[in-house]
Amino acid sequence: MLEELKEQVWKANLQLPALDLVVFTWGNVSALDRTRGLFAIKPSGVAYEHLKPSDIVICDFDGNVVEGKLNPSSDTPTHARLYQAWGDEGIGGIVHTHSRWATSWAQAGRAIPCYGTTHADYFYGPIPCMRSLTQSEIEGAYELETGNVIVSGFADDNRNPNECPACLVRNHGPFAWGKNGDEAVYHAKVLEEVACMAAYTEDIFTEQREESKEDPTAPQYLQDKHYLRKHGPNAYYGQPS
Amino acid sequence: MLEELKEQVWKANLQLPALDLVVFTWGNVSALDRTRGLFAIKPSGVAYEHLKPSDIVICDFDGNVVEGKLNPSSDTPTHARLYQAWGDEGIGGIVHTHSRWATSWAQAGRAIPCYGTTHADYFYGPIPCMRSLTQSEIEGAYELETGNVIVSGFADDNRNPNECPACLVRNHGPFAWGKNGDEAVYHAKVLEEVACMAAYTEDIFTEQREESKEDPTAPQYLQDKHYLRKHGPNAYYGQPS
Amino acid sequence: MLEELKEQVWKANLQLPALDLVVFTWGNVSALDRTRGLFAIKPSGVAYEHLKPSDIVICDFDGNVVEGKLNPSSDTPTHARLYQAWGDEGIGGIVHTHSRWATSWAQAGRAIPCYGTTHADYFYGPIPCMRSLTQSEIEGAYELETGNVIVSGFADDNRNPNECPACLVRNHGPFAWGKNGDEAVYHAKVLEEVACMAAYTEDIFTEQREESKEDPTAPQYLQDKHYLRKHGPNAYYGQPS
Amino acid sequence: MLEELKEQVWKANLQLPALDLVVFTWGNVSALDRTRGLFAIKPSGVAYEHLKPSDIVICDFDGNVVEGKLNPSSDTPTHARLYQAWGDEGIGGIVHTHSRWATSWAQAGRAIPCYGTTHADYFYGPIPCMRSLTQSEIEGAYELETGNVIVSGFADDNRNPNECPACLVRNHGPFAWGKNGDEAVYHAKVLEEVACMAAYTEDIFTEQREESKEDPTAPQYLQDKHYLRKHGPNAYYGQPS
Repeated sequence: MLEELKEQVWKANLQLPALDLVVFTWGNVSALDRTRGLFAIKPSGVAYEHLKPSDIVICDFDGNVVEGKLNPSSDTPTHARLYQAWGDEGIGGIVHTHSRWATSWAQAGRAIPCYGTTHADYFYGPIPCMRSLTQSEIEGAYELETGNVIVSGFADDNRNPNECPACLVRNHGPFAWGKNGDEAVYHAKVLEEVACMAAYTEDIFTEQREESKEDPTAPQYLQDKHYLRKHGPNAYYGQPS
Repeated sequence: MLEELKEQVWKANLQLPALDLVVFTWGNVSALDRTRGLFAIKPSGVAYEHLKPSDIVICDFDGNVVEGKLNPSSDTPTHARLYQAWGDEGIGGIVHTHSRWATSWAQAGRAIPCYGTTHADYFYGPIPCMRSLTQSEIEGAYELETGNVIVSGFADDNRNPNECPACLVRNHGPFAWGKNGDEAVYHAKVLEEVACMAAYTEDIFTEQREESKEDPTAPQYLQDKHYLRKHGPNAYYGQPS
Repeated sequence: MLEELKEQVWKANLQLPALDLVVFTWGNVSALDRTRGLFAIKPSGVAYEHLKPSDIVICDFDGNVVEGKLNPSSDTPTHARLYQAWGDEGIGGIVHTHSRWATSWAQAGRAIPCYGTTHADYFYGPIPCMRSLTQSEIEGAYELETGNVIVSGFADDNRNPNECPACLVRNHGPFAWGKNGDEAVYHAKVLEEVACMAAYTEDIFTEQREESKEDPTAPQYLQDKHYLRKHGPNAYYGQPS
Repeated sequence: MLEELKEQVWKANLQLPALDLVVFTWGNVSALDRTRGLFAIKPSGVAYEHLKPSDIVICDFDGNVVEGKLNPSSDTPTHARLYQAWGDEGIGGIVHTHSRWATSWAQAGRAIPCYGTTHADYFYGPIPCMRSLTQSEIEGAYELETGNVIVSGFADDNRNPNECPACLVRNHGPFAWGKNGDEAVYHAKVLEEVACMAAYTEDIFTEQREESKEDPTAPQYLQDKHYLRKHGPNAYYGQPS
């Protein structure tokens, strides 16, 4: 059943370690069969190097297993909730990881501001960090409530999930999505790069300071020496050309 | 003697460079044979690429060599002390490394706070940084005293080593453990990831600031240009589909 | 037509992922045939692993396609403008990437100060960050205006593009150049290394502080213990020599 | 002449890219034949992947080429000066690189404090940053003066180069040494790791702060949920064991 979709989801999951988005089993990809209202998802706790297409589990929008011998990802109810809400709006693949930079923004509880065109090429506006789940949400149907917080967060802010294909779950990590599993993984990688560069940007921006006596800038005569030792008529670095 | 255990410990040691937890010989793994009260450990100063199963040294809980031609790791008395205290509580494997992020927290003298679920999935509560050894402890049975500081630190704080399978030794580096050598290595890698993300989290959290005139956020019209150059009816990036 | 140049440009583009300067398709290299007034450039949105020499597109200084079945890079008008202005001054290759550190300086809106000889070996003076494009420039001929901002920025500051073979486009990313495509890629990599070390330098410089009670420096007796456990007559680390 | 030494120096130079200490040609290794008063050194500007044992150049303590068809490293007079001063004290190999973290400390003009045992295992005391060269030193016999500043810096501070096998040249980068070329490269790698962890340590130390309302620490009930979803009788992550 849905053999082609399972093969796609299997391949998309293998992209996670290849793109350095996961260690161990810390991530999962799913993809939707919109006409049947079912999705295929990674089994829980299975190492990527042992994963086979036949291990992929088929679930419905309530998170029930329809086919498969293994337990689906423990995050399955979150995936199910997003497909239920957004499947008809074009979302056909979902990824969850604990990739370092995106997770660190989620842990800091901050949305990622748009600092440049790398971000703007894929995300229209800041990448939001969702509100914290309440104690009763966490102690209740935790993974489903995680999905609810994402869906209601986008609705409350009038954000279109197609125009912002990722978000951060506070104190947890990122979810990303796309029209299929491959695009969801692509967006998870873009998110990680953007999250990394946004942190670097803030560090570099903050270090900006007035010139001072102690400024570590190299003196002009050192710059002259090094540049001219490699360039111009008196250069002596390297072999004669 | 204990050939299977030596093979396991050999393989677990090879995981350290594979998981980017060590450079050169800066780490060691041991594992316990609980019924005999003996453990197998890496020899001191032997490069991983030259290590053979037959090089693994067998020691008792006093740190004496029971079998093996090579000197055991110089950290052997620390391993011995932990097995003595915790072997019956389920600890069957121990790892010491100088992995970059965990060592940097140890050098800063700080416990790693729990900033998110990656941490909470494996460690219940902060990952403690042990008290500094005194001058006399360092000048005496240094490696044994290192074990004593860990064991008494966990006891004093009513921490269960099964629920917090790692700690930081101040100005030194991390120790991690588990039910066997493989799980100890697994926890050493989780620790490193968690330590990395906790430092990133604090940097990102600290950079949080009120919006200001100089905010580096990209102007809305630049965001519009880039998003719409790739998306929607007037997109012109890439090839026609 | 220009088969040799297309082969060179193809190879130079493949250097971008090999030197860890790009993820996905986030970069492009072009190179000039000065006598014909044409340049060869990567097609837009084509993955490096699928790129063939015959995919390379030939354009003129107005950015028009002269030969090629694919769309050229969306940054083609920027390349064209730089060749138009600087082709006769020795610039024969241009690279654009979103490499992490250089892009982060561009996003922070800062020129990279010369902090040392690695920088001075290749760049004479700070690596400039160009002024922001205006809203009308962005909404108009955006990529051409990007080229105009670079060319006029260098002219206004009396900078010679041969002596400073890269710049940062604010909120966007780096452009680098050289006498041919290979040298342009080389300079893009130097820029990334220099940008990384300049950020590290500022962090380390800022952390400088008066010695204090809480200083994390290791106590002398711990330094003694560790140094002497590996060195001198009483060393006990490793195997007897 | 000195074929074995040339082979050793060739191999030691190849370790620089293998240990991620250089990009392009940014580093060089030399080694000493103490009885002849000659040393073998990498030629200037030759890529590691093209380097052959026969390319290695033989020089005397005045930096004159004794054998070899290629120009020796432009840093040759620095190597020569260190061998002249320290060759009889046991120094038989020297390395210069622009490795990222060590270079960043050099650019910041700071000695690397001893923050832990990784440092103390190899370096007795802080790793010094030498005084800036004066304008006349830089404009004169620059590379020889670089050697003079290192040698007189160690003498003035009563530091033994065997007990501190590396230093930082301000606004430039690191030099490391050892009893032969291999040990010099080993120390260059240790220096880079120590420099990296010292910077991380200071960042983590500085972020230390009183608990506050906005502390990003994960709430206890989230920690409970995640820990208990993987551990204990009600765990539901992964496959049944």
